[in-house]
Amino acid sequence: MEFFIERELFLQAIQDVSKAVSSRTMNPILSGIKITAESENITLLATNSDLTIQKVIPVCNKQSHRLHIVCSGSTVVSAKYLLQIVKRLPGDIHIKIDHLNKIKILSNGIDANLNGFDFNDFPIPPKLDDSQEIRIPNSVFKRMVKQTLFAVSRSDTRPVLTGVHLSLENGRFSCTATNSHRLAFSRGTVDTKESLSCVVPFSALNEFNRLAEVDNEILKLYISKHHIIFRFNSITLFSRLIEGNYPNVESLILTEARTILTLNKEMLQQGIDRASLFGSVIENNKVLLEVTRDLKLRICSTSTVFGEIEEVQSIINLQGESELSVAIDGNFLMDALKTIEEEVVQLSYSGSMKPLLLQAVDSDLHFHLISPVRTA
Amino acid sequence: MEFFIERELFLQAIQDVSKAVSSRTMNPILSGIKITAESENITLLATNSDLTIQKVIPVCNKQSHRLHIVCSGSTVVSAKYLLQIVKRLPGDIHIKIDHLNKIKILSNGIDANLNGFDFNDFPIPPKLDDSQEIRIPNSVFKRMVKQTLFAVSRSDTRPVLTGVHLSLENGRFSCTATNSHRLAFSRGTVDTKESLSCVVPFSALNEFNRLAEVDNEILKLYISKHHIIFRFNSITLFSRLIEGNYPNVESLILTEARTILTLNKEMLQQGIDRASLFGSVIENNKVLLEVTRDLKLRICSTSTVFGEIEEVQSIINLQGESELSVAIDGNFLMDALKTIEEEVVQLSYSGSMKPLLLQAVDSDLHFHLISPVRTA
Repeated sequence: MEFFIERELFLQAIQDVSKAVSSRTMNPILSGIKITAESENITLLATNSDLTIQKVIPVCNKQSHRLHIVCSGSTVVSAKYLLQIVKRLPGDIHIKIDHLNKIKILSNGIDANLNGFDFNDFPIPPKLDDSQEIRIPNSVFKRMVKQTLFAVSRSDTRPVLTGVHLSLENGRFSCTATNSHRLAFSRGTVDTKESLSCVVPFSALNEFNRLAEVDNEILKLYISKHHIIFRFNSITLFSRLIEGNYPNVESLILTEARTILTLNKEMLQQGIDRASLFGSVIENNKVLLEVTRDLKLRICSTSTVFGEIEEVQSIINLQGESELSVAIDGNFLMDALKTIEEEVVQLSYSGSMKPLLLQAVDSDLHFHLISPVRTA
Repeated sequence: MEFFIERELFLQAIQDVSKAVSSRTMNPILSGIKITAESENITLLATNSDLTIQKVIPVCNKQSHRLHIVCSGSTVVSAKYLLQIVKRLPGDIHIKIDHLNKIKILSNGIDANLNGFDFNDFPIPPKLDDSQEIRIPNSVFKRMVKQTLFAVSRSDTRPVLTGVHLSLENGRFSCTATNSHRLAFSRGTVDTKESLSCVVPFSALNEFNRLAEVDNEILKLYISKHHIIFRFNSITLFSRLIEGNYPNVESLILTEARTILTLNKEMLQQGIDRASLFGSVIENNKVLLEVTRDLKLRICSTSTVFGEIEEVQSIINLQGESELSVAIDGNFLMDALKTIEEEVVQLSYSGSMKPLLLQAVDSDLHFHLISPVRTA
């Protein structure tokens, strides 16, 4: 194997696949990146037990100076040291393997040699069945993931809740995430007759979000029994699926609200941020929301040891009963508010023991449910 | 106590003194900042056992809207929560203490209340004897500190080496720091007849560097038996001194070098950075420097497990013998190179067991000594 490659191009590809490298592993070869040169492209591949990322760099005639392949071949090389060397090299790079499987990395008189692993020992990514292909614009899926991913459970007690539930039926594509105290839901429409229901680990969607550019590209999804494959730009991301039945969350969705508050999103977010002042010492970062007699929103929190903070904000519109008093986890409300880009939001209240519903006014593309916390 | 203050001004003052606050302390009052309002100014004070920082904000007639004092008094309030509240407030601030020593912090309809500590329990800073005052430009002392501070010992086995030795005699002011494997020295001239010899803890000089602006201000130094006091801008920084005899380092300084290499500083720094590739797995980040037969500088390092890296750089000038081969700690050389602003440096070599001397060409204001590491 021997090729010449532009430094920036190679560095970007190494960084793209690096997140799938196992940093702590019993199997040292998984700390490496497999590099394969063929006549028309080079491929970088990294994997851990859950996630595999593959990036292809084609020899493009228009920019033939960016990659020039002298001779094909394969090797596996430490991801950490490859990344560190390439970052520190001053110019374009010449890669070469010797007969002892040493990878020579040459650039402007600098000569680095990394010991390689035997590429035959590197795991092969799951097979891709492309008979069932789901196509959705990158930008739509990226929005759905951003609006839900944060809400997954961080606890392993119910593994199925540590992932995001993807569902596709009759062209209606949705993402749902919940830790059973809060829930985030987002949907979009897809022009397909395929259907889908699976739970994807946090790490895979987090990597998708990092790697996918918001552009006009189409994301292609492929599903097998145990895996999901995302193909976008020049990247293929393979992830195992989380097994188990995802809870039916339709029943949680409010049918009728007792009170609907219409609020300025920015002001509410700043108020909740201030009320979270004692968040690190108050259980569940409990923040109290109340409608005052003069129909304003009072936001407050109290730490018996350190003090209290309160403020009163004006309400754009109040629909229904004016009696409202509910204690919620300020962090959950902040997380949800951060995913809303619209200027005006609606808080729907159905009683102090029922979840609050948060959504943007004039948009039912996504919403959040947040359970109250006990006040006594 | 009651006053009105511009948010930015108050926030800056809280941040300035906060680094002296004890975050983990048996004495909860030391987690607080003492605020004192008098007729003409307010003072913020924070302290831990080693370091005390005091900042005075005067009522300035020209900008009287920035601070308006209604009524004098004192209180001590949690530094952490005060900082967090003030950061999050939208506008100018109204501070007020009630009869229960609650501090009310008001701004644009937001009402925060922090429980105060009894200010009588707050430690009083060391007395300042201003009969012996040493004056030195902020910018000169800041340069000297920057060029030496990094080289102090991080180990407690010889406490006196964890500080920087300040010495003043016949108008010659110097800073020295060493961990006994490397040494950094910097000096400047001061127009004074005072003399001085003391060891100042890392933390105090680190805070001085953070707080002192590079301007035309004069730094005033005061010394007592156990303390040093730095006064600059509107800040007073009190530090305990480290007791013990600082080693005599004059004997270490080279009299005659066998070889003097003149090198481009930037190129050398980048080469050492690359050679430090395996730094985390090679003991002492051992980097080998050699003069090649064709009078170039070869820089290399080797990890038996991962690989090796080497490069060859041109030498601007070689004076003396051309045989040179020495192994040093790459991190020590990098640290020293980072403090040198000049473009061209000199490496003086006196044998593979003697310390290397590094300094800028045409400047004897500061230098570095780095002991070789064993090669076998």
